[in-house]
Amino acid sequence: MYSYEYPHPAVTVDCVVFGLDDGGLKVLLIQRDLEPFALSWALPGGSIKLDEDLGQSARRELAEETGVTDLYLEQLATFGKPGRDPRERVITVAYFAIVNLLEHKVSPDTGARSAAWFPVDDSPPLAFDHRLILDLALMRLQSKLRNQPLGFEFLPEKFTLTQVQRLYETILCEGLDKRNFRKKILTTGLLVPLDEVEIDVAHRAAQLYRFDKEAYVRLQAQGYAFEI
Amino acid sequence: MYSYEYPHPAVTVDCVVFGLDDGGLKVLLIQRDLEPFALSWALPGGSIKLDEDLGQSARRELAEETGVTDLYLEQLATFGKPGRDPRERVITVAYFAIVNLLEHKVSPDTGARSAAWFPVDDSPPLAFDHRLILDLALMRLQSKLRNQPLGFEFLPEKFTLTQVQRLYETILCEGLDKRNFRKKILTTGLLVPLDEVEIDVAHRAAQLYRFDKEAYVRLQAQGYAFEI
Repeated sequence: MYSYEYPHPAVTVDCVVFGLDDGGLKVLLIQRDLEPFALSWALPGGSIKLDEDLGQSARRELAEETGVTDLYLEQLATFGKPGRDPRERVITVAYFAIVNLLEHKVSPDTGARSAAWFPVDDSPPLAFDHRLILDLALMRLQSKLRNQPLGFEFLPEKFTLTQVQRLYETILCEGLDKRNFRKKILTTGLLVPLDEVEIDVAHRAAQLYRFDKEAYVRLQAQGYAFEI
Repeated sequence: MYSYEYPHPAVTVDCVVFGLDDGGLKVLLIQRDLEPFALSWALPGGSIKLDEDLGQSARRELAEETGVTDLYLEQLATFGKPGRDPRERVITVAYFAIVNLLEHKVSPDTGARSAAWFPVDDSPPLAFDHRLILDLALMRLQSKLRNQPLGFEFLPEKFTLTQVQRLYETILCEGLDKRNFRKKILTTGLLVPLDEVEIDVAHRAAQLYRFDKEAYVRLQAQGYAFEI
């Protein structure tokens, strides 16, 4: 009784973990040791276990294959095109996160595979449909950045507008008009000018700001959408 | 060789179809005829077939159970908490859409189950975790409405600002400040005032507008985000 009429597919999870440091936007990949796509680079991931929640499976696979733990992984989308895996029908639930590269070191010893960070705009060919998953994750990340102050966790406590713009340009992978950007970021009301300027710089010392997290929480509760 | 180490879960699709007419925002539900949750209302959906793409499965199940066809179903999220189905581990990929109720009639004869539209704010208890899925779909719909001119397809070609506001209030399930709303909707630059006013109305005839689709496409290409 009560059973499902159709045969069951395999279900996996895959993780797109973006890393940010002064070198730009990177993505965490693992090198496959087994067929199919042996030696190809791929997103970290693998089969779910029946007693795990999906997010739990994603965190376990990521930890097993890369040593990276303690991330908030957000569900991205589910990919299930027949034929995306040559073995059998495999449906994968993709997750993504962005982390400070300096705080999340990869431990390549934890799994049989090597794990490494690659620049997003210079990554190797990927196994399966992982390029599609990576592209969608990048679009989602960029759209989040345009609508919420995602990036401030990557800035020091006190920062200049140039630093904010550089951060945005790195994640958006495009140059932004300086005047326009400054106007937009300041009218959000989320940056508090400090009574301080940069020190120890060769150029003219720029005004320092801090991010007003309380104002952000207040504005969010009112249905305010941040927009750059 | 090449096979997956873990047992496979069942995979289903579920559809949250919102309908809009003068009576407000509704959701399409079916009444289950089998256990578990026999006689409970639920989202239309069911098991995938191994040779179908996920979106295809969603469209097939929706058509089989409600007679509703030709919708653009957008993937919402995947729900897979162990125990969400008492039979076995079932992972469901949820889809959503919003349609004009006048154009999408339900055909209750197509399946063994009855299908019906319920007001979103007055729907019956739902089977499984379908309430959670419905709530997330409503949040996603509302957030889309705040960031893109989703609703104009539900307005006549020429409309008043009051009609736009009523549409927004219906989908957002909240009242909006008239002055604020008008200011925001007009500064988007997407409404073109016409040389016409309402006719045959008892109150003072209001200015008519049309939606500028070309301007929207142009602004979107520039990375413009609509915001209400």
